[in-house]
Amino acid sequence: MPVGTIAILSPGEMGGAVGGALSRSGFQVITSLEGRSERSRQSAQRHGIRDVGGYDALVRAADLVLSILVPAEAVAVATRTAEAMRSAKRGIYYADCNAVAPATVQAMAEIVESAGGNFIDGGIIGGPPRAGYAPRFYASGKSAHVLAELSGKGIEVVTVGDEIGKASAVKMCYGALTKGTIALQVSLLIAAARLGVYDDLAAEFRHSQADAMKRIEGQIGRLPTVAHRWIGEMEEIASMFEAVRLPGNFHYGSAELFRMVAGSPLAQPGIDRPSLNEAVGKLAKS
Amino acid sequence: MPVGTIAILSPGEMGGAVGGALSRSGFQVITSLEGRSERSRQSAQRHGIRDVGGYDALVRAADLVLSILVPAEAVAVATRTAEAMRSAKRGIYYADCNAVAPATVQAMAEIVESAGGNFIDGGIIGGPPRAGYAPRFYASGKSAHVLAELSGKGIEVVTVGDEIGKASAVKMCYGALTKGTIALQVSLLIAAARLGVYDDLAAEFRHSQADAMKRIEGQIGRLPTVAHRWIGEMEEIASMFEAVRLPGNFHYGSAELFRMVAGSPLAQPGIDRPSLNEAVGKLAKS
Repeated sequence: MPVGTIAILSPGEMGGAVGGALSRSGFQVITSLEGRSERSRQSAQRHGIRDVGGYDALVRAADLVLSILVPAEAVAVATRTAEAMRSAKRGIYYADCNAVAPATVQAMAEIVESAGGNFIDGGIIGGPPRAGYAPRFYASGKSAHVLAELSGKGIEVVTVGDEIGKASAVKMCYGALTKGTIALQVSLLIAAARLGVYDDLAAEFRHSQADAMKRIEGQIGRLPTVAHRWIGEMEEIASMFEAVRLPGNFHYGSAELFRMVAGSPLAQPGIDRPSLNEAVGKLAKS
Repeated sequence: MPVGTIAILSPGEMGGAVGGALSRSGFQVITSLEGRSERSRQSAQRHGIRDVGGYDALVRAADLVLSILVPAEAVAVATRTAEAMRSAKRGIYYADCNAVAPATVQAMAEIVESAGGNFIDGGIIGGPPRAGYAPRFYASGKSAHVLAELSGKGIEVVTVGDEIGKASAVKMCYGALTKGTIALQVSLLIAAARLGVYDDLAAEFRHSQADAMKRIEGQIGRLPTVAHRWIGEMEEIASMFEAVRLPGNFHYGSAELFRMVAGSPLAQPGIDRPSLNEAVGKLAKS
């Protein structure tokens, strides 16, 4: 079926930009701001996303819901949308695009499909869409082709089969690499600082691990502002690893590190992006 | 004091090559093969390292001992050498060059110094010396200048202050990066294979994480033959992290992964170096 109206839950930094890009491609883009922050309201407005009020109105108007949230909210929003489908007697397409483990996605699929909806497993790789750049949405499940209708219209869609959980598996393994590497690098630099060898280690890295050093120097600046969002994702990754008989410890360790960064003075609003030396120095003292 | 005779404990793959390089630079290089394997005996012979018999003879002949072992043997060999110093009434220089945590090194320093020896903290970054290549020995402690006499003579020595534990801290933070990254990458590729998305993830990585993919492709081949040696190192790193209030989980996770690799069919003698796809495929099934 051709998608005409897309609901974004919720229009935060990523969801708002995705909604804006889809809207510019000619889709009707709506949301429900019920219970959302003032920031989401502003983001919806800025990106031309229309607030339809409650979830019932949203389910009656939309052909497809894109759930783009912090991982901890994913199940609650799926449940609430399923309830609205049931009371509106209208089963629509629901794509969970959050950083959650395949097992969590399968639980959401049951919730949505038992209410008459059609569930799509989605996983986003990349940042918010902008001019000349589109994030990749991995999609799986029998209805993945519906999400694929959006490909080339502000986002790219890569389908990976009929099975619910596959798209999330790709996304979570990807996050295990990118965010796990950041956590590993930042934590060992903090260890070096606390052990009094930061300068020696940094010199050695610049000599023999220049790529890793350049990478972390490029990424440390925004870490304090995003770390809080990554905690739940790392915990979902850890549980996914354990579900396939692999150590989840890495990723519980990353969650712990991100919790520490998110709770540090660096994460206070209004703080300038720190350099690597500043960030490590301050985190080592915290 | 000028070092003339250097004892290597033990002349394995790394120790043997270091001994050989020092011997070619004009040092007398000796060892005790008491309780060592046939492989160490062959390595000593190949590298021109003379077996003096027991530890007492070794302590009487050597000016400086380089302890180069798997981490689990480090304390036992330090203790045994200290006993020999005590019974020979000859305190000599003893450089622990193993991948052990600063707290373990401090314990060894006490053992050696209470027997009249002079302890040097060492940590090796790099592989066995060969033509045109010398590994870097980080060195700390009041006697670090004695190890520094060897610099440019088959090995490079970088001194990092008077404190016992600093050299090991540099080495362990370095290993946390290099070996931790390998463990992280291999484990998430195994996860992807077990979740049925290895090909999709590998394609995504080749597209957007080409450096990481190239790196792991270059390193996977030798992993099965070295993984057993890295288990103890990762556990020492984990305990070092916890000693400075950082999550040790990462590195316990790496230890677990290396244990799994070392116990897999890939680690059997006589197996060819696997490609990345082969290694991940086999590990995912194990």
